[in-house]
Amino acid sequence: MSKAVPAIILVRPQLGENIGKAARAMLNFGLDDLRLVAPRDGWPNPSAGPAASGADRVLQQARVFPTVAEAVADCAHVYATTVRKRGVTKPVMTPEQAAQTIHEQEGGVGILFGPERAGLETDDVALARTIITVPVNPEFSSLNLAQAVILVAYEWSKGQTLAQPTKVDMEPPAPQEELEAMIGHLENMLDKNGYFFPIPRIPTIKRTLRTLLTKPSWNSMEIRTLRGVLSTLEKPRHNAHKG
Amino acid sequence: MSKAVPAIILVRPQLGENIGKAARAMLNFGLDDLRLVAPRDGWPNPSAGPAASGADRVLQQARVFPTVAEAVADCAHVYATTVRKRGVTKPVMTPEQAAQTIHEQEGGVGILFGPERAGLETDDVALARTIITVPVNPEFSSLNLAQAVILVAYEWSKGQTLAQPTKVDMEPPAPQEELEAMIGHLENMLDKNGYFFPIPRIPTIKRTLRTLLTKPSWNSMEIRTLRGVLSTLEKPRHNAHKG
Repeated sequence: MSKAVPAIILVRPQLGENIGKAARAMLNFGLDDLRLVAPRDGWPNPSAGPAASGADRVLQQARVFPTVAEAVADCAHVYATTVRKRGVTKPVMTPEQAAQTIHEQEGGVGILFGPERAGLETDDVALARTIITVPVNPEFSSLNLAQAVILVAYEWSKGQTLAQPTKVDMEPPAPQEELEAMIGHLENMLDKNGYFFPIPRIPTIKRTLRTLLTKPSWNSMEIRTLRGVLSTLEKPRHNAHKG
Repeated sequence: MSKAVPAIILVRPQLGENIGKAARAMLNFGLDDLRLVAPRDGWPNPSAGPAASGADRVLQQARVFPTVAEAVADCAHVYATTVRKRGVTKPVMTPEQAAQTIHEQEGGVGILFGPERAGLETDDVALARTIITVPVNPEFSSLNLAQAVILVAYEWSKGQTLAQPTKVDMEPPAPQEELEAMIGHLENMLDKNGYFFPIPRIPTIKRTLRTLLTKPSWNSMEIRTLRGVLSTLEKPRHNAHKG
């Protein structure tokens, strides 16, 4: 069972009021790790406090990060909440399914929520292993940021009172920063060999690669092995030696 | 299974904004029967529309009643949501349990929500057969009216088929021979660069690598991408070109 409480990560939130409401929703259901990625109006934001209705502790503890990657650096499991389906092939879960999965996972969990108007961008979603979509009325889907947070927090809280059976000792996935470093290492090698081509397609190519490497949930030891593999392939080749 | 959609009954609501938010929360999860008992500021209320974010249909259809008894006159099953436990001996359910029960019931269902500040009075609760209490953090319980409505509506919607998120068509894992060919390709490259060392440990090293690459269940397209990655890394390097 995941001992850590999931982090709620608001990506480029626009209104302080919504940050406050999210904090209130979180604390109602026992969540208190709030992270803000590049909040539009800076931080602290005077509109957040009144909307938090007493959940000031959550706001005071909130941490601000310049990028999503930095905000999830210590997370072994990253979830992205989206409303619409996107051209990303990742598992999609309801908040209920995600909560159940989270309770079975080892390691830190981060859940991304996009900005009010536009939602998460494709590059934000690419960092996540799993997508959470709240099933809403297809004829009227107007879920706001704080509502999405409350539903996810509420579902998570359900699993808290129940005793969870101890899982087999699987190593938890490596923290996101270790995976990022490996991806960076590989991209750098590929770049040197002219893999990223043509230029307009580079973002798509990188996303495909990232999605594929995010899929396995490799643990730290596995990532270390892969780093060894990359370093080996980077070395001067025996053939080259002879030549 | 109850064919009728439950009625959401706001008892003596104070702010038009909260009525609008409740309508929005309802319609997000497929509920549209809104009833108001003696709204403090009369009805219609100009603050309700903007807060409904497009759920105007629910507001236009809303019916106003002078008393709770009249509002629930056509309901076979009345539920009352309360935050605190009261000295009433009625069954208490979570929103989840109540939703399951409602889906099994025949006849109309009405769910009462109290005014913002004070909640339902004992006489209101007396009309209900069952109490719904949202389990919140005992150290911070600050659920507002619209939040209570959304959680109840959300749980109800789970039993409706309208609501399942479309699963992403995840490609099945590639046939084993494709995976084997990729592992063979990588092993060959690593062998050339002296990765497999010392000799007695080679079987273990290969097993580690295989375990790690079998974990993701990559599909055929992903395997093809990875083969492209390997071929790129195999090519003469730009540096070598220059040398």
